[in-house]
Amino acid sequence: MKNIADLLIDSIIEKQSCAVVGLDPKIQQIPEFIREECKDYYGNSLKAVARAFAKFNKFIINEVYDIVPAVKPQIAFYEEYGYEGIRAFEETINYAKSKGLLVIIDAKRNDIGSTAEAYSCAHIGRAELINGSLPVFDADFVTVNPYLGIDGVKPFINDCKNYNKGIFILDKTSNKSSGELQDKKIENEGLVYELVAEKINNWGGELIGEYGYSCIGPVVGATYPDQAKILRNKMPYSYFLVPGYGAQGGTAEDVKPCFNSDGLGAVVNSSGGIIFAYLNEKYSGIFSPENFDKASRQAVNNMNEDINNTLEKNNKKYW
Amino acid sequence: MKNIADLLIDSIIEKQSCAVVGLDPKIQQIPEFIREECKDYYGNSLKAVARAFAKFNKFIINEVYDIVPAVKPQIAFYEEYGYEGIRAFEETINYAKSKGLLVIIDAKRNDIGSTAEAYSCAHIGRAELINGSLPVFDADFVTVNPYLGIDGVKPFINDCKNYNKGIFILDKTSNKSSGELQDKKIENEGLVYELVAEKINNWGGELIGEYGYSCIGPVVGATYPDQAKILRNKMPYSYFLVPGYGAQGGTAEDVKPCFNSDGLGAVVNSSGGIIFAYLNEKYSGIFSPENFDKASRQAVNNMNEDINNTLEKNNKKYW
Repeated sequence: MKNIADLLIDSIIEKQSCAVVGLDPKIQQIPEFIREECKDYYGNSLKAVARAFAKFNKFIINEVYDIVPAVKPQIAFYEEYGYEGIRAFEETINYAKSKGLLVIIDAKRNDIGSTAEAYSCAHIGRAELINGSLPVFDADFVTVNPYLGIDGVKPFINDCKNYNKGIFILDKTSNKSSGELQDKKIENEGLVYELVAEKINNWGGELIGEYGYSCIGPVVGATYPDQAKILRNKMPYSYFLVPGYGAQGGTAEDVKPCFNSDGLGAVVNSSGGIIFAYLNEKYSGIFSPENFDKASRQAVNNMNEDINNTLEKNNKKYW
Repeated sequence: MKNIADLLIDSIIEKQSCAVVGLDPKIQQIPEFIREECKDYYGNSLKAVARAFAKFNKFIINEVYDIVPAVKPQIAFYEEYGYEGIRAFEETINYAKSKGLLVIIDAKRNDIGSTAEAYSCAHIGRAELINGSLPVFDADFVTVNPYLGIDGVKPFINDCKNYNKGIFILDKTSNKSSGELQDKKIENEGLVYELVAEKINNWGGELIGEYGYSCIGPVVGATYPDQAKILRNKMPYSYFLVPGYGAQGGTAEDVKPCFNSDGLGAVVNSSGGIIFAYLNEKYSGIFSPENFDKASRQAVNNMNEDINNTLEKNNKKYW
């Protein structure tokens, strides 16, 4: 049976795209016509924002589902609006799945064993009902934080096995201060992010699919290409989730070290650079706010071209 | 003005308790009469479980609000049930606050700057509406994971300042595998948890209240008393959130090193040991499942006595 990494790769090859669209809505950047419509209908409330998010995301998904393999909703932006936000989050996931997209929840969850299990049930497993069980968010992948060690990761790995899902574990994150802890040199060992890489490589070893990639991979920021090179060698069969392209400053050249010589091995996320492309001067002259979704499609096409051209120079196997 | 640590300490002294009740409901351990009632009303659904949680928590809160300073709902157990779970979570927080309890959300949230900000808005800050802003969960404290460095923590610290709130940052967690990363020795520096402690101590330095304690403190597991002793010295003015007492194996003697010589400096959490006391053979002979809440009250009284007796031996200032 194909594992979830295989299904991701199938979609990457079919769509000729390793781009992931980050669905990270922010109310003040959503076009005014959606904001006003939701305010008129639901008042100036948490619910109005949540409904605006759900509506906005559907427009985006309609324009990108055929040109990217996956979307990555960041749960923080929905959690900000309480249960109405989480309802919009669930709706977004279900809609994306209905359009054939894979869904990566960015949640960076972590806790001790029994609690990590509850998180895993929510995101990729099944919640215990009064009788029986039921999937809840039912994403394909979720991101996990490794600070608590294997206890906090194991429940997710179990659900990867049970339900054919995947996880991306924070390793070298894209933000400026990521080195405060992650770059520290451990006595008689490597750096913290290298230690975490070794763990990810071991944890993923038994879950390798037909293309040779595991369901357990790392998060490696596009903003750290030198570290990505080291990490690519340390985790040869891991799929990398690479945030930080575009708005955060990462370029196609920067993400190149995250790929293997087969042209596979990484998906590259862009959030604001895609979903709020209509606000970027590169697109705002061409697309009106009413056509924000078309601007997003154009931005995805440009991102695909940018990354694929860079990958092609090295390897033409899949590109 | 009193900071949130002062308000916590006022309540600790008034109630003569440094115990925190962890509101971590699990559907199969909730008394059958509540489960059946909710199933009859809402079917065998996610909502039925969420309603059972809200109901169960109210019973518990009614019996403990006058004998503990705070409750700590673990959001994972609510998130497991999607938006209905989060609705029960919000209801629980609001009810606890209406009874004069302080609320510590255990969420271990973490992300890069702008995303961490969204989490902080949800838990201790204010969410941005179409016009203006509104508090959402509006807890007094939230737990935070430090793996991304200051970028991921700063937005929470800002909200601590803006809204008089507090955070507990994971330092040495109570689980078995916490040492895999946290106990590593950094070259020419201390262990990882010591480095994190130094950061917490620095970050909290400007937010010290009338009792001499900061709004920024660490999470230190009751299961690691030797490490707690070291950490107490490294963070003299931090309030410790100490999980792992009771069900996880930590005793009153184990938590003692988390306190300062003034008898202050720590709150000790117990979850299953309190809320599911009626299932423990120590209480099940005395309390029927219908009186599960009374069993919880008894368990809190026992916990208070256990810890206060141990603290009294050292210091009678407040005990």
